[in-house]
Amino acid sequence: MNIKDVLIHFLPKKKTVKVPPGTNLIEAADKAGINIPSLCAGRGKCGKCKVKVVHKKIPYTSEEEITLSPEERSQGIHLACQINVTTELSVEIISEEKATTTQFLTYDLADKINVDTHLKKVYLEMKTPGIDNQVDDFSNLNTSTILQKKQIFTPLPVLQNLPTFLRKNEFKATFTIDEDQIISYDAGDTTGRLFGLAFDLGTTTIVGSLIDMLSGNVLAISACTNPQSKQGEDVISRVHYATSEPGGLVKLQTDVTEAINGIIEDLCKQSNVNFREIYEMSLAGNTIMNHLFLGVTPQFIAETPYIPAFRKSQKFRAEELGITIHSRAMVSTLPNISGYVGGDITGFILASGIHNSDKITLGIDVGTNGEIVLGSKQRLLCCSAAAGPAFEGGHISHGMRAMEGAIDKCVFENDQPFFHVIGDVDAKGICGTGLIDVVAELLKFGIVDVTGKLDLPQSKEIPEWLRNSVIKTDNNNSFDLLPNENSSEESQLLITQRDIREVQLGKGAIAAGINILCKELGISIIDVEKILIAGAFGSYLNKHNAQKIGLIPKVPMDRISFVGNAASLGAKKFLLSKKARKETEKIINFVEYVELSMRVDFQDVFAECMLFE
Amino acid sequence: MNIKDVLIHFLPKKKTVKVPPGTNLIEAADKAGINIPSLCAGRGKCGKCKVKVVHKKIPYTSEEEITLSPEERSQGIHLACQINVTTELSVEIISEEKATTTQFLTYDLADKINVDTHLKKVYLEMKTPGIDNQVDDFSNLNTSTILQKKQIFTPLPVLQNLPTFLRKNEFKATFTIDEDQIISYDAGDTTGRLFGLAFDLGTTTIVGSLIDMLSGNVLAISACTNPQSKQGEDVISRVHYATSEPGGLVKLQTDVTEAINGIIEDLCKQSNVNFREIYEMSLAGNTIMNHLFLGVTPQFIAETPYIPAFRKSQKFRAEELGITIHSRAMVSTLPNISGYVGGDITGFILASGIHNSDKITLGIDVGTNGEIVLGSKQRLLCCSAAAGPAFEGGHISHGMRAMEGAIDKCVFENDQPFFHVIGDVDAKGICGTGLIDVVAELLKFGIVDVTGKLDLPQSKEIPEWLRNSVIKTDNNNSFDLLPNENSSEESQLLITQRDIREVQLGKGAIAAGINILCKELGISIIDVEKILIAGAFGSYLNKHNAQKIGLIPKVPMDRISFVGNAASLGAKKFLLSKKARKETEKIINFVEYVELSMRVDFQDVFAECMLFE
Repeated sequence: MNIKDVLIHFLPKKKTVKVPPGTNLIEAADKAGINIPSLCAGRGKCGKCKVKVVHKKIPYTSEEEITLSPEERSQGIHLACQINVTTELSVEIISEEKATTTQFLTYDLADKINVDTHLKKVYLEMKTPGIDNQVDDFSNLNTSTILQKKQIFTPLPVLQNLPTFLRKNEFKATFTIDEDQIISYDAGDTTGRLFGLAFDLGTTTIVGSLIDMLSGNVLAISACTNPQSKQGEDVISRVHYATSEPGGLVKLQTDVTEAINGIIEDLCKQSNVNFREIYEMSLAGNTIMNHLFLGVTPQFIAETPYIPAFRKSQKFRAEELGITIHSRAMVSTLPNISGYVGGDITGFILASGIHNSDKITLGIDVGTNGEIVLGSKQRLLCCSAAAGPAFEGGHISHGMRAMEGAIDKCVFENDQPFFHVIGDVDAKGICGTGLIDVVAELLKFGIVDVTGKLDLPQSKEIPEWLRNSVIKTDNNNSFDLLPNENSSEESQLLITQRDIREVQLGKGAIAAGINILCKELGISIIDVEKILIAGAFGSYLNKHNAQKIGLIPKVPMDRISFVGNAASLGAKKFLLSKKARKETEKIINFVEYVELSMRVDFQDVFAECMLFE
Repeated sequence: MNIKDVLIHFLPKKKTVKVPPGTNLIEAADKAGINIPSLCAGRGKCGKCKVKVVHKKIPYTSEEEITLSPEERSQGIHLACQINVTTELSVEIISEEKATTTQFLTYDLADKINVDTHLKKVYLEMKTPGIDNQVDDFSNLNTSTILQKKQIFTPLPVLQNLPTFLRKNEFKATFTIDEDQIISYDAGDTTGRLFGLAFDLGTTTIVGSLIDMLSGNVLAISACTNPQSKQGEDVISRVHYATSEPGGLVKLQTDVTEAINGIIEDLCKQSNVNFREIYEMSLAGNTIMNHLFLGVTPQFIAETPYIPAFRKSQKFRAEELGITIHSRAMVSTLPNISGYVGGDITGFILASGIHNSDKITLGIDVGTNGEIVLGSKQRLLCCSAAAGPAFEGGHISHGMRAMEGAIDKCVFENDQPFFHVIGDVDAKGICGTGLIDVVAELLKFGIVDVTGKLDLPQSKEIPEWLRNSVIKTDNNNSFDLLPNENSSEESQLLITQRDIREVQLGKGAIAAGINILCKELGISIIDVEKILIAGAFGSYLNKHNAQKIGLIPKVPMDRISFVGNAASLGAKKFLLSKKARKETEKIINFVEYVELSMRVDFQDVFAECMLFE
C-alpha cells in the first residue's frame, strides 16, 4: 500500500513538513520545530493550541464548538489538537505562546555568527626536495602557502612523524592548524571536514553540540545529567565535596570528563564523525563548573571573599584534560565574570549582545544561583542571587526536574484543573515551571495570600474542586494537586506550605537581585526595555504566571523574551569566532559584579521581595 | 710545621698562583690554566717547555745545559720541567705552543656574552584579595609587576595548584617565567638561584655545562662518551641502526637521554643544585645527533638528496624529551645548517663570530665528518667532508681516543723519539694528534713519501733507531713506535701502511673541502686571514705538523688559532642570550651550504689533496 505523505505549511515562518496522513497537527508542528502549547493533553479543553487554518475550511469538532468562540470559528481558528491532517494544509500559528519557541535567532541583538575561527585546515602540495633544493621538511612545511605568515609550532610527535609521512604521501597532505600550532595532519585533501564542539556545562545538565566549523552549522546535539549531581545538587555541596573528601576534586573532574566523553561519543555516532576529526572545543559553565572541569580547587570561591582561581579564558590540550577528541585539540573555557557569575553568563551576554545594546536590558538565568545582568552598552551590572533549587524541583516535596512524568504546566479552570505532564504519562511530580503555574493559580484564587500563607479564604467564590484540594492540618496546610486520581497517601501529589516558602525564597532572591541592580544603575524597573530569560526553563515558562508570583518584573509582556540555552549559543559563538573570543575578554572587564552580600540594603529588599503582591 | 706557599707570576698574561714550595713549574702553570707543552715527560730532553725566568737568576740543570743553547741561557730561558719552585718567581711563557691554550676568550671575534635570557625569575608580593577587591588569582598573578606586559600562559598543573599555594604563602612567591609561560613557582624569594644547561652533543663525546643564568658563569662541566657509539662510531652507522633495527631509533634516543641525565646528575652534585632549579637547556649537536636526540628519524639525511627533518631551532619541554630537569623547562636545539652541517657548527660560527667578521676566516672542525666554514660577513660558505674516523683514532691499527694511555704528541730527535702519553702511563695506543705528529715526522725523514708510501729511503742520513723501527714485509711496511720497549708482537705499537692511507683519506677530504670552498669563494688559500680550529683536537694539535701533513693550509702560523670546544661555547651563548638566538636564525640563512657530492671537480681535487707535498 502506498500512502502518500501530506505537506503542512506553517505560517508566518514558512516552514513546511511532510507527514503521514492522520498525523496530529501538534505533532506535525513539533516536527517543524514549532512548539504549540497544550495543557489538556489534546482533549480540546484548555484552548492553548489555537491555530488558524488558511485557504481551506475544515469541520469543527464538538470540543472546538465549546472551547472556541463563534468569532474565532468565523476566522478559521481551530484547536491544533483536534486536527488530524489528511490533505495538504496551510496553518498560521497564532497562539500567544508562539513567542516561547527559542527566539535567539530572531532576537535583534543576536547577529548571525560569522565563521572566523582560529582553526585552519589547509591542503598543501609541497615542493619535493632534490639535491639542488635541499629544503628541510620543517621549512618546506612552514614556507608552504599560508603557513609562511608566521612560524607554526610543530609539536614533537608531529615532527617525529613528519619525514616519513611526507614521503609516503608524496609531499601532499592536509594540515590542521590552530592559531600557531599544528594540531593534525592527514593524507590527501580532507579540508572539507573540520569539526568542533560547544558545551554548556550546567550544574544539572550537560549539553554538547557538534559543529561543522566550516559552515557553522550544528550537526548534532546530545545531553545528559551532570553526574556530579550525586555529590550534591548545588555548586556549594560540590565545593564542599571537592575540598573535604579525600580525592573529591579528582572524582568530580573525572566524572564530568567521562560524561562529556559520553556525549562526544554519541555526537560522533549521530553524525558519522571520527573523534579525531574534532579539533577544537569550547565550554561554557558557571565558575565552579569551570574550576571542577579543569581540576582546579574551587575552595576559595565558597569562602569569603569568594575568589576564583581564574576569570580569563583558559585553554589546554584535550589530552591534558582527558577529553577524547584529537589529542592536540585545544579546549577553551569561556571566561568567568566572578566567582558566582561564570562563563555561562559570559556566553549569555555574548550571544544576546546585551553589552552592545542601546536598550536597557535585563537578563535572568534562573537556576540554583540565579544570575542577573542589567544594563546596556553604557554600563552593565551583574549579580548572583542564591535562589535555591526550588525552580529546578529541588527542596520541593514532590519536586522533580523537567523530565518524563513532571507536571510542567498547569491552569486552574473553574470546573477543573488542566495539567501537562512531560512524556504524556502519569504525573510523578512537579518541576519548576509547573510549580510557578500552581503558585500563580493559588494566588489568583486567594488560596495563597500576600505573605505566602496557604489557607482557604473566607470568600465563597472558590470552586468546589479547589476547596476540596486544600488539606487542612493543625500546623500547615497543603494543596493536593490530584485529589481524585488516587486516595492512597503515598501517591498524593502535594504542594506544602514549605514548598510555597521555598518558592518565596527563590523568587525573593532573584527579585531582590533585580531590585538592587536597578538601584545601583539608578533606574526603575519600568525603565527596563527588554527582559531576556535564559536557562532550562526555556520556552516552558508561563510569563504571566512568572510575573504573577513576582519572579519576573511587571513590565509589558512584549518586552519579555525567552532565549533558550544561551550558554550553548555563547559557547558556539566563542568556538566559531576569533572576534567573539576577544569580545568575551571585553565583556568580563566591562561587566561590573555587584556582591549582594556586601550590600547593607540587601536583607531589607530581600524580605520585601519574598512577599506576593 | 708551617710551610708557606710561594707565589708564581706568569707573564704576559699576568696570572698568579700560590703553590707549595717544591712544585714543578709545569704543574704550577697548569694550576694557572696555562698549558706548557712537554713531550719528554719532564726529562729535559724535548725542549718544548721553554720559559723565561725574569728578574731573577736561577741555576741551570745539566739537562738544560745540553738542551738549551748558550744564547738562550744568557737570556734567562729555562726548561720549565727542570724547575721546582722554592721562592716567588716571575716567569714569561715563551714556548711557541703557548698559543695552543684555549684561545676563545681572547679571540677578537668572540665578544663577552651579555646575559639576556628568555628566562626571568621574579619575586612577587601580590595583593591579598578581599571582599572589596575580588581579584582572581590568575589575574592577580598576571597583573603583578613585570608580568603585566603580556599574558603569561599558566600551565594546567600550575593553575591547579595556584589557589592553595598562594594562600599558604600569603601571596608572596617567586615565579620563573620563560618568555610567555610560567615554568615554576617557589615559596619565598629564590630569585638568586637560576640555572641552565648548555650541552655539546658530539658523535663521540657529550659535554654538559651547568650555568648560572644570572651571571653567565659556568659552575661545573661534566662529560661522557656518547653511548650511541655502541651502535656505530660514525653518524652513518647510527642512521643505519635507527632505520633498520626494530626500535633502533627509540633505543638511540633513550641511550643519549640517559647519558645526558647522568651528566646532569653529576653537574648537580658538583654544584649543589637541585635538578628542579634548572629551568632551561640548550644543545648543540650535528644534524643527525639533533635528530636522534629528539627521536626524529634521520633516515632521509643519509639518502640522497640528504634532507633533514628540520634546520630551525626546535624547542620542547624537558618532560616530553625525558630530560630530568624541571619538567616544564624548555630544551632547545641549536639550528642546523644542512644535513651534514649541524647545530654544533652553528654554535661554532655564533661563538667565533665568523659571520660578522671583516677578515676572511676559515673554520675547521675536524671529526669523522670534517665541517668547514669559509668566508666573512660578505659571504660565508660551508661544507662537510667525509674525513673518516682516523683523527679520532678510528680505523687505525693501534688507534684510540684521546684518553689515558694514548700517545697524543711525539717528536723524533736524531738520537731518539719523544712521546707524550696522556695520564703519564704506559702507552696503549695513539690518538689523532699523536698520529699527525708521527706522520709528519715520518715525512720529514722521508720514510713516508709524497704518495704516502711507507718505506726506508735510500738516503744514508736516517738515524739508526729510526731505521730499526721500520718493519719491512713483502707487501706493506709498518713503523714500530716503541721498538725497544717490548719484543712481544702483541704489545707492538705499529703504524701500518693502511694507517697512513687512512690519514691520507682524512686529510685529503678536509683539504679538498677547503680547496673547493676557496674556488667557490674565488680566493686563494693565502687570502685566508684567520684559521680557527675547533673540536676535540683542541690545544693538543701541533700546528706545524698539521700543516706538514696537509691537514691545515700553509699560511703563516700566527693566523692559526685553536678555539677549543666551540660548540659548547655556542650552546652557552644560545642559552644566555635572546640576541644570540636570533643571530643563529640569521646564520643558518646566511651560510651557503656547498654539497661536495654535487661538485664535478671534487674527485680530482680530492685525489690531488691525498698526496703529501
